Amino acid sequence: MQRRQLSMARAGRSAKLVAMVSPKPPPLYRRLADRVESMIADGSLRAGERIPSVRQFSRQHDVSVPTALQAYMLLETRRLIEARPKSGFYVRPRPAAATLDEPAPARHAPSVSTLSRYTPMVSLMRDLANPALVPMGGAVPGHDLLPARRLARIGASLLRRQPAACNAYDPAPGSLALRRELSRRSLDWGCGLSADDFVVTTGASEALQLALRAVASPGDTVLIESPAFYGLLNIIAQLRLKVVAVPAGPAGLDLDATALALGRGRVAAMVVTPNFSNPLGALMPAENRRALLSLAARHGVPVIEDDVYGDLPHEGDRPRCLKGMDTNADVILCGSFSKTLCPGLRIGYVAAGRHHAAVLAQKTAFTVGSPTLPSLVVAEFLRDGGYERHLRKLRHTYRRQVARMRDTVADVFPADTKVSNPAGGFLLWLELARGVDSLALCAEARAAGISIAPGPMFSPDGRFKNCLRLSCGFPWEDRMAGALATIARLAAR
Amino acid sequence: MQRRQLSMARAGRSAKLVAMVSPKPPPLYRRLADRVESMIADGSLRAGERIPSVRQFSRQHDVSVPTALQAYMLLETRRLIEARPKSGFYVRPRPAAATLDEPAPARHAPSVSTLSRYTPMVSLMRDLANPALVPMGGAVPGHDLLPARRLARIGASLLRRQPAACNAYDPAPGSLALRRELSRRSLDWGCGLSADDFVVTTGASEALQLALRAVASPGDTVLIESPAFYGLLNIIAQLRLKVVAVPAGPAGLDLDATALALGRGRVAAMVVTPNFSNPLGALMPAENRRALLSLAARHGVPVIEDDVYGDLPHEGDRPRCLKGMDTNADVILCGSFSKTLCPGLRIGYVAAGRHHAAVLAQKTAFTVGSPTLPSLVVAEFLRDGGYERHLRKLRHTYRRQVARMRDTVADVFPADTKVSNPAGGFLLWLELARGVDSLALCAEARAAGISIAPGPMFSPDGRFKNCLRLSCGFPWEDRMAGALATIARLAAR
Repeated sequence: MQRRQLSMARAGRSAKLVAMVSPKPPPLYRRLADRVESMIADGSLRAGERIPSVRQFSRQHDVSVPTALQAYMLLETRRLIEARPKSGFYVRPRPAAATLDEPAPARHAPSVSTLSRYTPMVSLMRDLANPALVPMGGAVPGHDLLPARRLARIGASLLRRQPAACNAYDPAPGSLALRRELSRRSLDWGCGLSADDFVVTTGASEALQLALRAVASPGDTVLIESPAFYGLLNIIAQLRLKVVAVPAGPAGLDLDATALALGRGRVAAMVVTPNFSNPLGALMPAENRRALLSLAARHGVPVIEDDVYGDLPHEGDRPRCLKGMDTNADVILCGSFSKTLCPGLRIGYVAAGRHHAAVLAQKTAFTVGSPTLPSLVVAEFLRDGGYERHLRKLRHTYRRQVARMRDTVADVFPADTKVSNPAGGFLLWLELARGVDSLALCAEARAAGISIAPGPMFSPDGRFKNCLRLSCGFPWEDRMAGALATIARLAAR
Repeated sequence: MQRRQLSMARAGRSAKLVAMVSPKPPPLYRRLADRVESMIADGSLRAGERIPSVRQFSRQHDVSVPTALQAYMLLETRRLIEARPKSGFYVRPRPAAATLDEPAPARHAPSVSTLSRYTPMVSLMRDLANPALVPMGGAVPGHDLLPARRLARIGASLLRRQPAACNAYDPAPGSLALRRELSRRSLDWGCGLSADDFVVTTGASEALQLALRAVASPGDTVLIESPAFYGLLNIIAQLRLKVVAVPAGPAGLDLDATALALGRGRVAAMVVTPNFSNPLGALMPAENRRALLSLAARHGVPVIEDDVYGDLPHEGDRPRCLKGMDTNADVILCGSFSKTLCPGLRIGYVAAGRHHAAVLAQKTAFTVGSPTLPSLVVAEFLRDGGYERHLRKLRHTYRRQVARMRDTVADVFPADTKVSNPAGGFLLWLELARGVDSLALCAEARAAGISIAPGPMFSPDGRFKNCLRLSCGFPWEDRMAGALATIARLAAR
């Protein structure tokens, strides 16, 4: 029991941290329930284990018996504990999540599509602005998970200290202060880039756009993962490029299919997401990375690496970037702080290697430069060392949120449902029964107040009809369990 | 004398306003000299008129005699007053500026260029970061002319009041608060656009880029003014479009040449700057606008209107936009606040009419949206009514700075030099003697610590070799007179 109290205290500390950055602390009983939940999540309390009685719990935490009871009732609602008659409360056996399989890697011949009719099917971004919708659609971090107040304090201080500088142009390649921090961080990515290697962009989207434009012209074909980030498909469609979508699974791109596609016709670039891809959450093994780079070199194809989720492993070290393994100097690295720190500041970057001058010329022509203040804010946040601490907390939070969502999926969906098991990021990919039409499903879910992303959004040619993506970016709310049950019910029809 | 004192007091008020927003007020004698100068500039004191003696002036302004004398000496240095022996001080006859002709409208056949080898010859933006260079190159407002502190206060207050909102995505079309202000302002432009007509962009550059992409594909030909804003040439080059450059003069595009060019081959779009073009400062007469629109309608060519200088007439009402006269709904209006308020916030906009959906889809794909805070800051500044007051002051300042630069040009350049006489904005276009190589001249000037823009930057095919552009965006400094004399000396060789 001592050990248990100790870790309860530890969990309490991190709950306090959350409370510090969150504008309105949740009520006491919910915070108590959250503590117990996180102990279950991190294994301090195991399935089947008996927990203290309500009366003991109230004494241990110095709260009233009704408050303790409320906390236990919430934990029951969350299906985390159960009362056994005449015996007390027990941690429920983990739901069947462990028994749900992962989706098998996609299997289809890599074929070229024009994307001429591609439009993102639903507006996930607009959905996020509507608080009535359960936010499982857009891959966006919940506000309370980000250090908005600290960023705001830095911004306000910069505006006070140097109003004129904040109001002056910051021409491309953008703030040297920020590029120096990126350079420093690139050591963690296994890259060792210099400040001069970077161009600051408006999020990773602009980085991808500039990278693609630097290496491909309208009508050219670009090799992508299948399924792929719909935003990438959107950029490619607007640039009037064609794609060849190569099946991907939990280990990233299928390399045989990649070799096949590269052998078949000229490919202007490959766009890959080795670290926690969107939507699959795939982490490409080191040997696959080497093989991919040697394929790319053999065919003379530049590789565009999207690393927006790289900072978000659920455990262990940050995975390295493909760019760091690149001996051919033809990997273009794109990233941002939108999934970890500040979507609204729109700070992304591109390190384009031999295409640096082309990217810089475009960025200069198209925007002169990005706004000045956001770069300075992010540079100062990175420099003051708050980012690593913040990341540690955020990784833990995303891990818990993903586990929670996954458990609940296993709880409410049929046993033949497949769900991804990512080691980083905050996205889940579900494969439902054959015959489910996820476009119709998502429309019905939306009408029922739930935002999710239908599978075909992630394909240039309407594949993944029975799949959908769930974002676990927002802190778990009890209405999410209800929402998942609703989706399962709609899918069963 | 009473009237004169009154207007001196008025000029004093505006000098105080300048002092309020400027971090370090200039010394007293210089402020006194500035007052007298602005009275000369606005005609309150006329050429040949006698001004008070040093002793009278010291009494009137309650300053010491040495201070009054210093002010008068500075005015002499500035060649604004002269001492006549045994008689006192007089306002000098206006220098020969009035006698310098304006450059004749460009005359060349409109021919198609590929821009494949176009690169801006010098980096005017980078020059601005170097305080050792006299800043007459980049078309950028001097820091002290912009309300950086007020903008900073608004920004800091927004960050305090709504840190989470400032850190959240603001997906395209961008902040409704800002688009509402744009809608309100569009009445002044003669347009009456609604908030839904706008997409917020990263400066006018991104607006022009999106507009061009919406109506033209690589290889298409775009009709532009000759000379044209080099940034536009830069965008067109990056988009791999071709151009047909049509001669322009003080009334804007030559309409006969425009008709000729439109009749000769398919033109995907025209890009025009009816209000104070860059570099000419041309203001297109109303009848020319109507003729241009009817030409465009007849040939089915969309018109992209760059209105970044529209808010900056030197006198009288703000000129209307072409878009307001457009009955064919095929004018795409692009603008920004970079010349009037906040270059570093990068707030631009595009009202694309029938191309709105295409522009919105591109902006969404390429960047998701612009950063959140800058839009909110500008919206609040516009809403609180400070913008009109600020503009009134700024217009007056630019008028004075342009007049001052123009007078000094007339003073130090040969009599056959031509100089534009713009009714708005802050740019001057000089035509030097035939045979002057302005690219070499600008390189030599730069080596001598002076940043200016060579004529060929403004042409797709190297025209305007003996021309150059001077920016009067920075407050007049005495070193500018020396810089102009240096340029004149270098040009004479």
